[in-house]
Amino acid sequence: MELYSGHINRLVEELAGLPGIGEKTAGRLAFHIIGMPQSRVERLAKALTDAREHVCYCQSCQTFTDDVLCPICANGNRDHGTIMVVETARDLAAYERTGRYEGVYHVLHGAISPMLGIGPGDIRLKELMERLEKEEIREVILATGSSLEGETTAMYVSKLVKPTGIRCTRIASGVPVGGDLEYIDEVTLLRALDGRTEI
Amino acid sequence: MELYSGHINRLVEELAGLPGIGEKTAGRLAFHIIGMPQSRVERLAKALTDAREHVCYCQSCQTFTDDVLCPICANGNRDHGTIMVVETARDLAAYERTGRYEGVYHVLHGAISPMLGIGPGDIRLKELMERLEKEEIREVILATGSSLEGETTAMYVSKLVKPTGIRCTRIASGVPVGGDLEYIDEVTLLRALDGRTEI
Repeated sequence: MELYSGHINRLVEELAGLPGIGEKTAGRLAFHIIGMPQSRVERLAKALTDAREHVCYCQSCQTFTDDVLCPICANGNRDHGTIMVVETARDLAAYERTGRYEGVYHVLHGAISPMLGIGPGDIRLKELMERLEKEEIREVILATGSSLEGETTAMYVSKLVKPTGIRCTRIASGVPVGGDLEYIDEVTLLRALDGRTEI
Repeated sequence: MELYSGHINRLVEELAGLPGIGEKTAGRLAFHIIGMPQSRVERLAKALTDAREHVCYCQSCQTFTDDVLCPICANGNRDHGTIMVVETARDLAAYERTGRYEGVYHVLHGAISPMLGIGPGDIRLKELMERLEKEEIREVILATGSSLEGETTAMYVSKLVKPTGIRCTRIASGVPVGGDLEYIDEVTLLRALDGRTEI
């Protein structure tokens, strides 16, 4: 992109370094930003540095928050005896959007992946085990992804949880609601078959 | 998105205000940014404000640049007698990527759109006419889009250029290279037919 001059090139490069943003999108964003009111650009820049500087991990569930405890852990109306274990804060947000889950969470910030060299010590498992010891937990729901890494992690965590006598469950895996069987991969179809229930 | 706390919410909101970035993408970007090294976040924030502050319009072709003249207008090896008129700096970039066009450009920063209330006075047409008067121009190539607005603008500019006696051309419109006829809309098919040439 030698056609633009310094400042534009630098902005395009920085934007293109973000996930899911290619060079074309970065160019479109850069030109949009140049056309935005200066105050808005400054607000965006400040939001970036503020978030990076002030956001920390919730002392209990390890999700990102501004405070010692995240809004969910600090909420006395939630069921603090049920912990849903998820890989990322985005997965937590996905379940929160359903509006139906009333327990609390534990964010691992990753999944065990021997391929990528991510072991149990690299995700926030120690913090989960500490919670199981200190708090009165009745159930641990494993909601890691249904990828190889997610399954491996679920298996690993379940083996740690079981000896404590705490109930340990795994979210169901199968055909998504509204999914057309024709377009669903075979592994999912077989898993849906294995997980069939009486109606 | 009441699930995140202040700083994250603000960042998600700011990011979601950019074109083509929905709330989900904004969330994913925000969490990625929180995990980036602080120095990279600061570089991104600085690139944003720097671009907004220092980027101005090329005195000649009106594209975005850091300097009085953009690199293309300042380049003595380009053919300064041929001006390609485009709607946006991104369109200029698209033609530059072909690596074959040797003339210079004129960026209108928009297109005439009675629907949106954008008249000839709202785009950089006056600057184009000044160039046609002052510089020795042999040809004006109209490369505005093939949308209604692009066509209207091309028509309008051609009517201004013709009385000056300068050659005025329009880029061809038709079936894109590699395009499968089956998937191309009828207007394009008819235009390709109208624009047929002897082989």
